[in-house]
Amino acid sequence: MTLNAQLLLGSRAASGEAAPIYGINPATNERLEPGYAGASPAQVAEACALADAAFEPYRHGSLAARAAFLDAIAEQILSLGNTLIERAMLETGLPRARLEGERARTVGQLRLFAEVVRTGDWQGVRIDPAQPDRSPLPRADLRLQYIPLGPVAVFGASNFPLAFSVAGGDTASALAAGCPVVVKAHSAHPGTSELVGRAVAAAARETEMPEGVFSLTYGSGSIVGQALVADPRIKAVGFTGSQAGGRALLAAAQARPEPIPVYAEMSSINPMLLLPTALANRTETLASGFVGSLQLGAGQFCTNPGLILGLDSPRLDRFAELVTQILTQAEAQTMLTPGIHKAYEEGVNSLSRAEGIKSLATGLGSTDPNRCQPQLFRTTALHFLANEPLQQEVFGACALIVSCQDEDELVMVITALEGQLTATVHMDEPDSELARKLLPLLERKAGRVLFNGFPTGVEVCHAMVHGGPWPATSDSRTTSVGSAAIQRFLRPVCYQDCPPELLPEALQVGRY
Amino acid sequence: MTLNAQLLLGSRAASGEAAPIYGINPATNERLEPGYAGASPAQVAEACALADAAFEPYRHGSLAARAAFLDAIAEQILSLGNTLIERAMLETGLPRARLEGERARTVGQLRLFAEVVRTGDWQGVRIDPAQPDRSPLPRADLRLQYIPLGPVAVFGASNFPLAFSVAGGDTASALAAGCPVVVKAHSAHPGTSELVGRAVAAAARETEMPEGVFSLTYGSGSIVGQALVADPRIKAVGFTGSQAGGRALLAAAQARPEPIPVYAEMSSINPMLLLPTALANRTETLASGFVGSLQLGAGQFCTNPGLILGLDSPRLDRFAELVTQILTQAEAQTMLTPGIHKAYEEGVNSLSRAEGIKSLATGLGSTDPNRCQPQLFRTTALHFLANEPLQQEVFGACALIVSCQDEDELVMVITALEGQLTATVHMDEPDSELARKLLPLLERKAGRVLFNGFPTGVEVCHAMVHGGPWPATSDSRTTSVGSAAIQRFLRPVCYQDCPPELLPEALQVGRY
Repeated sequence: MTLNAQLLLGSRAASGEAAPIYGINPATNERLEPGYAGASPAQVAEACALADAAFEPYRHGSLAARAAFLDAIAEQILSLGNTLIERAMLETGLPRARLEGERARTVGQLRLFAEVVRTGDWQGVRIDPAQPDRSPLPRADLRLQYIPLGPVAVFGASNFPLAFSVAGGDTASALAAGCPVVVKAHSAHPGTSELVGRAVAAAARETEMPEGVFSLTYGSGSIVGQALVADPRIKAVGFTGSQAGGRALLAAAQARPEPIPVYAEMSSINPMLLLPTALANRTETLASGFVGSLQLGAGQFCTNPGLILGLDSPRLDRFAELVTQILTQAEAQTMLTPGIHKAYEEGVNSLSRAEGIKSLATGLGSTDPNRCQPQLFRTTALHFLANEPLQQEVFGACALIVSCQDEDELVMVITALEGQLTATVHMDEPDSELARKLLPLLERKAGRVLFNGFPTGVEVCHAMVHGGPWPATSDSRTTSVGSAAIQRFLRPVCYQDCPPELLPEALQVGRY
Repeated sequence: MTLNAQLLLGSRAASGEAAPIYGINPATNERLEPGYAGASPAQVAEACALADAAFEPYRHGSLAARAAFLDAIAEQILSLGNTLIERAMLETGLPRARLEGERARTVGQLRLFAEVVRTGDWQGVRIDPAQPDRSPLPRADLRLQYIPLGPVAVFGASNFPLAFSVAGGDTASALAAGCPVVVKAHSAHPGTSELVGRAVAAAARETEMPEGVFSLTYGSGSIVGQALVADPRIKAVGFTGSQAGGRALLAAAQARPEPIPVYAEMSSINPMLLLPTALANRTETLASGFVGSLQLGAGQFCTNPGLILGLDSPRLDRFAELVTQILTQAEAQTMLTPGIHKAYEEGVNSLSRAEGIKSLATGLGSTDPNRCQPQLFRTTALHFLANEPLQQEVFGACALIVSCQDEDELVMVITALEGQLTATVHMDEPDSELARKLLPLLERKAGRVLFNGFPTGVEVCHAMVHGGPWPATSDSRTTSVGSAAIQRFLRPVCYQDCPPELLPEALQVGRY
């Protein structure tokens, strides 16, 4: 399959009218052909107009047809075969096994949303039947269902070229909700985006979806991205990326005559608590498990464990020593882009220079470009509390151990944390009392609290929450992974005394 | 019961430290004693600190205890008896029957939320059991529940001194969700607010709630209101009022280091469509029913029908004539405040001067202050489409008939509408085809679509949606009336492999 570097404006492929962007092989810094000419403002507007035109037929199509579309996307992605994996490897520096796993997850979540669509439960039907004889006033017949918001702008993420990109979780959940989608591909993997975009377009054709149900654009965030969010036909935004990027989209969305919701998943350092008994009983397995999680994908996971909290003790020192031993021997891994690598180096340098911080370990160096040398730092609760920048995410395999003199300090550190995607507690039975005291604090800080595990690895299921208070996300009331993500793109409508012949299908009595 | 004009900082009554505000009897322009000294910034901060301290014990108390608190508030409000009604009459100019009805609604919604709390359904439990034998990777045990956001700031509304004020829908739903509440009383009815606030405080004492579960402050929106929204301990805002007020709170909430959700219910002109057959069959009853809805509470309802849409025809002319006849003889009614009356007069004057608009009816005048003379205007679809300010809400008993030459014009007018709380369709069976064509448009514009009724009169039940796209509200994904309003103050948390002894009660298997 030859890459044609064209935008998809609905079902029509078109050459972009703005300057081209190129993928870069981060392992070599080689520029990858072809160049992807960016969408012009008129082309962004055309994609939005098509999405708007598709909205009515798409949302009113049968749920079975919508589910079939999602299943067909999954099939089309699989049928890209090795072409997809190889292009993604070139563009991201991620290894084959990781990308094959990510493809399985992407396909799995499309199928999960197909199932969810079929059940209809997400329509949240509520019926208060009429009470014509109620006194002093009769009650009307009142029926509620959730309907889709309208066309959704989705921004591909750099770190999940499949699962959070063109046909990733945001697209799958928006399409499931009945919202047409206009994607802005991430500039780091345009070829991967084109392949997946063509798979979505083929699935749309195959299942006879309205033309504008899906469009794919390329270009810069500050031009194409801003134009997309400002377009009046766009009614919600899904984004995974940096805090600066998320804030810019949020500001653009709020500045519109009609502000719209932005679901931005931004930054998290994912605290991991080592409670005393667990730490004593399992120092070695905790150390090796932690390094495995930290190093996964060169640390480029939203849920990467960047902060270790423990009580000052010889066991914590031992844990730090063990991690240091492993990390010092760890190979440097290719990061996703030169920009991400540069930001990592800057973040590490900035941490190194912070007051009261000690560098414990630096992984093996490399003469190859864009390699992430894992880093481990240590500081005290007092320094951590006094120095807010220590909370800033360093995207990559960098972690900070904060040792607390006592439980009070531990409580203070947790209380001072910003919002997080995850918080992890390692505990054994004798730690229960302390864990019970900490859990209410952790609930308030994180969208997912996990026990005796590692946060990298986000199960796509019904009970997952990949979300959390600001700045982990821009909207703590939702999740961007799992079936509950569909709710982001819905709003309730009440129908009062609606004649039976006009009543939406989901609200017809006896249907559920 | 003597009014003491004190703030409630948790359970402690305190004299405000800022300049006093006074209620005004709008029927006479008389100043009402006592003066309510406003809260100082330090007092606002104290209320927020108390709310924050109350959050953990309050949210972890039993659901039965929380429900008992809500029921006790209802009882305490009832036990204020006539004192409450008379003070509210003085402060608002609303008649006794209306206020007694509103009290019943207020008490009813507190009791509804007590019931909702007891069921626990709002916790939205989802459980994905562990699959230890799954290949290639086992699945962890994942359980989701919704937990409260934290302390909520509630702003009392001028037009519902009971049902949308100190113990109104926002307070009831936030308390039901497990969020402590800090109220800023509306300056138009401080005495009513004090009485209800003391009832809430008495209920909190009686049911042994934590001290800071409820606080009541007075003062200006630009000082006390802004301080409240800016306080880092406040995690969400409930507001019903003007678009300018809602926008100011939204801007303040977005400017915080940690932005928070604002649920502002702002403005709506509530289009009412008169389809041809219904109009022909029921011209008289439609005219009298419409005037009744328009005049209710001097038109000071969020759901007041301010826009009539119909197809140009002798029947529409007849409808306009009939409404004109009734309105021309209609008595002027006292509005809630001098400020609201002034804004009404200005809005009416501005409409009168708009191009292509015709004044059809002005109600009877009055020499008494702050009286709302009902007004009826008429224009064409073309003028309405060309003149966006015609869409602006004139809060009060003012309506505009827009006549459309054909169905296409009607579709264009509906398409051009901003977001609305309600849209009403009057139709008979032969109108079904047209109604079927319009319903998808109306769904996109309004939170509630009603048929053959009038929008004033919002049932407090499970299926109600009092919400809608911007600028009807700042967040179309929710409702501020009905049991679904509790969801505004919740966020999901996932617990992964949580040891049984730590698992939150709602997530223990077999409980639901």
